[in-house]
Amino acid sequence: MADQTRVTLEQSEMPEAWYNILPRLPFPPDPPLHPGTREPIGPDDLAPLFPMGLIGQEVSTDPWIDIPGPILDIYARWRPTPLQRATRLEKALGTPAQIWYKYEGVSPAGSHKPNTAIAQAFYNKEEGVTRIATETGAGQWGSSLAFACALFDIECKVYMVKSSFEQKPYRRLMIETWGASVTPSPSTETNAGRAILDANPDSPGSLGIAISEAVEDAAGREDTKYSLGSVLNHVLLHQTVEGLELRKQLEKAGLQADVLIACCGGGSNLGGFIFPFLEEKIERGDGLRFVAVEPASCPTLTAGKIDYDFGDTAGMTPLLRMYTLGHEFVPPAIHAGGLRYHGDSPLISGLAEHGYLEAVAYPQGKVFEAAVQFARTEGYIPAPESAHAVRAAIDEALRCKEENSAETIVFNLSGNADFDLAAYDAYLNGRLESEV
Amino acid sequence: MADQTRVTLEQSEMPEAWYNILPRLPFPPDPPLHPGTREPIGPDDLAPLFPMGLIGQEVSTDPWIDIPGPILDIYARWRPTPLQRATRLEKALGTPAQIWYKYEGVSPAGSHKPNTAIAQAFYNKEEGVTRIATETGAGQWGSSLAFACALFDIECKVYMVKSSFEQKPYRRLMIETWGASVTPSPSTETNAGRAILDANPDSPGSLGIAISEAVEDAAGREDTKYSLGSVLNHVLLHQTVEGLELRKQLEKAGLQADVLIACCGGGSNLGGFIFPFLEEKIERGDGLRFVAVEPASCPTLTAGKIDYDFGDTAGMTPLLRMYTLGHEFVPPAIHAGGLRYHGDSPLISGLAEHGYLEAVAYPQGKVFEAAVQFARTEGYIPAPESAHAVRAAIDEALRCKEENSAETIVFNLSGNADFDLAAYDAYLNGRLESEV
Repeated sequence: MADQTRVTLEQSEMPEAWYNILPRLPFPPDPPLHPGTREPIGPDDLAPLFPMGLIGQEVSTDPWIDIPGPILDIYARWRPTPLQRATRLEKALGTPAQIWYKYEGVSPAGSHKPNTAIAQAFYNKEEGVTRIATETGAGQWGSSLAFACALFDIECKVYMVKSSFEQKPYRRLMIETWGASVTPSPSTETNAGRAILDANPDSPGSLGIAISEAVEDAAGREDTKYSLGSVLNHVLLHQTVEGLELRKQLEKAGLQADVLIACCGGGSNLGGFIFPFLEEKIERGDGLRFVAVEPASCPTLTAGKIDYDFGDTAGMTPLLRMYTLGHEFVPPAIHAGGLRYHGDSPLISGLAEHGYLEAVAYPQGKVFEAAVQFARTEGYIPAPESAHAVRAAIDEALRCKEENSAETIVFNLSGNADFDLAAYDAYLNGRLESEV
Repeated sequence: MADQTRVTLEQSEMPEAWYNILPRLPFPPDPPLHPGTREPIGPDDLAPLFPMGLIGQEVSTDPWIDIPGPILDIYARWRPTPLQRATRLEKALGTPAQIWYKYEGVSPAGSHKPNTAIAQAFYNKEEGVTRIATETGAGQWGSSLAFACALFDIECKVYMVKSSFEQKPYRRLMIETWGASVTPSPSTETNAGRAILDANPDSPGSLGIAISEAVEDAAGREDTKYSLGSVLNHVLLHQTVEGLELRKQLEKAGLQADVLIACCGGGSNLGGFIFPFLEEKIERGDGLRFVAVEPASCPTLTAGKIDYDFGDTAGMTPLLRMYTLGHEFVPPAIHAGGLRYHGDSPLISGLAEHGYLEAVAYPQGKVFEAAVQFARTEGYIPAPESAHAVRAAIDEALRCKEENSAETIVFNLSGNADFDLAAYDAYLNGRLESEV
């Protein structure tokens, strides 16, 4: 038998509670503010948009929150996800480091997004919600919520950033196969969309604009709630199944991570991956590093400033204290659509502000170079977002080679590229804007 | 904790030898014949096309064939694959039956095909082969061999059935991302291709034609061997990792299957799934049923006749005794491109001829109806080929409902539909030719 390169968990070893970082933070969290009064908002302010089950989680100070049985039951369709060692990549790099990755691309939608989509659909269903509106950039989130809504028999409406809608027809078809409806954003269906189109009929859209449309849709209809795929506390909470599984897997394999790496757009993938290691990070200090990887073209953590800002372009959401490039910032149309967000989760921002989290930014040429090397040594073709983590993991491994340091590098391969192969085509044929 | 609905195996529980059905067949196998002499062929006849390692497996009478370490090492990137229970589908159907499925879509290429692609690339590499030519229909095989060749640093040339080449640009991009080159077939690069184009410049191609091109390419170049993704004994041998894992998983969960179901094109997916249950089948008789599912438009087992026939359209391959529709049969362009083959593996044909295997055929409308029901209850969107097995599993479950029989139905979900969503679009919007 070969060395162990794959660490799996039984269904019975799946975490049965989410890890809530809020009561464990070594600094006080900053509350969201009402966009009108600039006073901290309360549950009532959020009630038009979210079911109370999720609002409760947004502010909960319970260290653990039980995962309801019906959610566990669905998680078990693809979870626990495997932890794999990239031995062939290690060899190609000639590094003494071990490179491990947790692979979330095995979910029905092909990414980590269903971890929260299923939970959000469940809590909406429990409170009788019959329709959910949301936005999607690259399409990973929209397809995940469509999948979740299909399973809970909830109508689902997805405002999809127009440039993605046009570039990724298959992603749209996936959403429709699960029974949801998709509208390119900006659309003529909302005031927010019409205002953008009036100013610029050719607008390619952005995540911020699509959020404005979905929020307006939900706020205006009694039967509809809104759902967000990242940024908010409850979303990151749900994603902690990733890090909790990883902790068990590392323990099972007798490993101690030296660095944990994940890409960061709104921050849910990163948060879910690292939060359960917070106590260990505090104890080990620089012995355990958290690394966020972002695109050079949307460098919130590496070049943004921390301040209160809106979550959407139209300024309809509560104000969140976060690293931001300004809510009117529209990043270039890079292929990692899921990382094109002007801000970051307040929880992630807090960890960065207080020195618990490093960040690094890459232009997309360097990202795809790493992704192709990974695909041709390990097999899986990373989603453009996840490819950012691959790039950073390779660079850490090369640093280890220089320093002759046998570290254990663990990154999150958060999704596959099945709907993003046009980006690889552009890269391989010299048509990618590499420096962006 | 919920009921067990997911049965996984550790890396250390992965089978370390393939199951060879040849010496265990309860009937004498029919040898392949030379296309010129009609005499049984020997290893030398196959040497221009295949490495000796694979030719040896083609005729081996060893009951078990060890899986070399480097292959196990790569299998462990996604294997063992999970066995899942479709409880939500059971509930929707109101059946007393249990429905389980083994999910092969977690591989880097999204199907079961890498199980043999990796093995074939390994044995070619061992004998110094630097280039491999093959054909692909739907693209699952071509992408799997491209993936395997990337890992073993072998040049890979894929003749892709032209209708698929045009309908599935992303599948082509996946093949290219792994570094292989793709040519639409019929092409002007081979005599076989040019002959077809002379007769019909608009030919959409077929698997039989593409095989002729790939065989001609390999036969004409010293540095090149040929690789086939189904039909041959060694291909089905490699796929037995599926059935061997399934046996362990059923045992681990305390289950006994009453019926095993898989789709059947050339037969490798089906063979790999059922072969390791042959002894149990012989012992239990009708207590354990094997069911092959095929398209009504290419009904080899249900409406073909068993006879010696060519594997390709041009008549360049050895003659195989199999259920066939005639080597010049060109099936309609159904979406399950992987099932558009005029013949069947001789091993599968033998099992059917001697009463060990049942077969059923469905028009594609019924197939997609089942696939959408599965996607909206269980999540995973089945590849059009795999959707045939879903249809049959649902029909078996409905029979169990009528008979109030709590049987255990196990089917092979051999691949995902990430590159086949146009087919779902057609079905959902009334543009599918349902009766074909």
